[in-house]
Amino acid sequence: MILNIKRILDGGHQDTKIGDFQDLEHLDGIAVSSTSADLYRSKRDDLALFYFRDGANYASVYTKSKIVSENIKWNNKIKSKKIMCLLVNTRNANAFTGKKGFQGLKILAEELSELLTIKQKEDEQSPVKIKTDEILFACTGTIGETFPALKIKSSLSEIINKIKYTQNKYVWIKAAMAILTTDTKPKLAMEECKIGKTNVKVYGIAKGSGMIFPNMATTLGFIFTDAKLSSKILDQLLKKNIESTFNAISVDGDTSTNDMVSIFATGKANNKEINSVKDKKLVEFNKSLKNVLLNLAKRIASDGEGASKYIEIKVQSCKSEDHAKKIAFSIANSPLVKTAIAGEDPNWGRVIMAIGKAEIKINLKKLAIKFGENKIVEKGSLIKDYEEEKVAEYMKSKNIEIIVEIGTGKESFTAYTMDLTKKYVEINSDYRT
Amino acid sequence: MILNIKRILDGGHQDTKIGDFQDLEHLDGIAVSSTSADLYRSKRDDLALFYFRDGANYASVYTKSKIVSENIKWNNKIKSKKIMCLLVNTRNANAFTGKKGFQGLKILAEELSELLTIKQKEDEQSPVKIKTDEILFACTGTIGETFPALKIKSSLSEIINKIKYTQNKYVWIKAAMAILTTDTKPKLAMEECKIGKTNVKVYGIAKGSGMIFPNMATTLGFIFTDAKLSSKILDQLLKKNIESTFNAISVDGDTSTNDMVSIFATGKANNKEINSVKDKKLVEFNKSLKNVLLNLAKRIASDGEGASKYIEIKVQSCKSEDHAKKIAFSIANSPLVKTAIAGEDPNWGRVIMAIGKAEIKINLKKLAIKFGENKIVEKGSLIKDYEEEKVAEYMKSKNIEIIVEIGTGKESFTAYTMDLTKKYVEINSDYRT
Repeated sequence: MILNIKRILDGGHQDTKIGDFQDLEHLDGIAVSSTSADLYRSKRDDLALFYFRDGANYASVYTKSKIVSENIKWNNKIKSKKIMCLLVNTRNANAFTGKKGFQGLKILAEELSELLTIKQKEDEQSPVKIKTDEILFACTGTIGETFPALKIKSSLSEIINKIKYTQNKYVWIKAAMAILTTDTKPKLAMEECKIGKTNVKVYGIAKGSGMIFPNMATTLGFIFTDAKLSSKILDQLLKKNIESTFNAISVDGDTSTNDMVSIFATGKANNKEINSVKDKKLVEFNKSLKNVLLNLAKRIASDGEGASKYIEIKVQSCKSEDHAKKIAFSIANSPLVKTAIAGEDPNWGRVIMAIGKAEIKINLKKLAIKFGENKIVEKGSLIKDYEEEKVAEYMKSKNIEIIVEIGTGKESFTAYTMDLTKKYVEINSDYRT
Repeated sequence: MILNIKRILDGGHQDTKIGDFQDLEHLDGIAVSSTSADLYRSKRDDLALFYFRDGANYASVYTKSKIVSENIKWNNKIKSKKIMCLLVNTRNANAFTGKKGFQGLKILAEELSELLTIKQKEDEQSPVKIKTDEILFACTGTIGETFPALKIKSSLSEIINKIKYTQNKYVWIKAAMAILTTDTKPKLAMEECKIGKTNVKVYGIAKGSGMIFPNMATTLGFIFTDAKLSSKILDQLLKKNIESTFNAISVDGDTSTNDMVSIFATGKANNKEINSVKDKKLVEFNKSLKNVLLNLAKRIASDGEGASKYIEIKVQSCKSEDHAKKIAFSIANSPLVKTAIAGEDPNWGRVIMAIGKAEIKINLKKLAIKFGENKIVEKGSLIKDYEEEKVAEYMKSKNIEIIVEIGTGKESFTAYTMDLTKKYVEINSDYRT
């Protein structure tokens, strides 16, 4: 679907374009709402609330950075197995904000707990008290600036008032836009599948842009499902699928203090209980989850800061997946490869350079390289009838595929990335101004 | 010295500026000559010949890339301890050119051997036959294009005819310019010192620009000395000093197939024989060698492709040098740090991010960060009277220093790099057109 985003948004964010994706509709057990706390001073939405009226099982993976934001510290302290809500803010990363930053989250958690407990009393047949230990936070934006806790606090009653218990596609798009920073497009994906005989939905939204190297960088990804699955199984499923999806994207080799991908299961589909991640009834769900994660990951790569082209680097027939991964990222993170692609130059020599510097032993006689369908190197030599004009034509495509055959084994890895443009430099030299 | 390069060059390369450096003068036992084989089709000099009429002891370090150029393969096969000449060409890296590329070097070596043997007969009292096994090659430029052996061969008699046995500063500058690719400045450095009571000279020239991460990337560095030192001692001295100099620079995290740093000693100073690298008579020479290598390395970093600012990243008080190095390069290679500096934005949050992603355990309470003299972070917190305007003023400097105190030990490492500008992207998307 393509739609004019100006009809959805109240203000700001007018550059935002929306790509093709399947509509997300209602998902039982969740309420989605978003608003502006005016953190950008442009009235664009900057807060999103995901409220699980009957709670949700959940699992999270966080940044591997050794310096993490205050909200990641908060989330790591949560002991409750059931989560009642997730609040996401953009503009401020709440990183390197120290005790005050953490204290700010405590203030927000207390306010949310109070307001949502009131809401429970108004709406629910068996109302419960919502505890601060049942609230998760995701933050993204600038590091080191004072966390605007009070400004956010004063918007909480509004965002809770906006809660509706049924969603349509606009509600999801609005929320997906409220979590963006320098992204140009909201990122949404969905799948439907069965667990046993029960239909379940797997919905996801994400944000990306700069600072994206393995371990997820300023990436936020949230998966919502109505499946009934324990937190333990969710954790196993998420970890199993993160390496080949969110951890396979690279924008610039940087990693943020705030990365977070979470999955929440409301249980409303009421499928039969699953006791092991190996249960065959999970095969379809596992595949759908992977598809949603991969779909979001690709959207992040193709919307990397300043990207003019989306690139897939497929490294195949390696001795180990680890070797394939190192070579794939050596190519995906090479500024020389990425600028050549920005310039639509079929500079395969730089791909050779990037393969060489990965520090994996190469048997040159077995090496083969293709750009899309165009063979370039075979058995370690440039093919005899190599036609540069033809490959140069291919380089004009919006999506570029680089296929490297190492020829020493059976393992492979695909990395997802984008080109390096002047626009990237422009965005990142002017980030705060 | 500053001079108008147009007076030196016959044509082309008119953008080239020359920075300040001490003049290199005559060095006994070497003849330097350069010419154009018209490899760039702009008549700029692209060949440099360093001829040691009585031979030179030597040592080299080469790229750590697993795919190396044909000239590195050639050099690695040399068994002779004495070298008679080094031929450097630019424009073509002779990498991924296979047997034909290697064969091309053989043709050149045979021609050089023949022509220089004739020259020996003309000039020397005890002429010797010059063997192909006494000839080294350095190549830089585009990977994967057919090596222009015949074009170079047809220029060899000219470059040999130009040989003069005394050098002045112009001869050195002309040679330093003949080895450049996209560099904007020739890179020269010199020191004088004593071995025992004998005065010796340490001269150096280099080229850099793109593809420069540790392990030296498209870096060529050549050190010439009149000291009398064995190849074994030269090897030990070079390896000892390369880590903190040429392997401490980073332009874009890329590494080339062609990197090479060599030292040649003509022995003409005739100092007393040195039998061990630990000999105290070598202390001064070792220091001078390090200074020349570091001087050249800094020139390479400050002339990195598109650089508008030169950056030193000093990581101090670490548990190990290895940790300090990992953190220093994590900052030096971060596109987000480098673009912020290009934008003169004191975005210290990105430095924090880069420290965090280095995967070294950090005790936040001990972390301190300074930009130049400006304290920013102390004991893991932003200093109370932090004045962003003052630091923003500092960011306008041409040379930026980032000092990080980890506070857990006594080891340190300094990395040398430059900012990431639109110009970098421009140069590298248009490299071959």
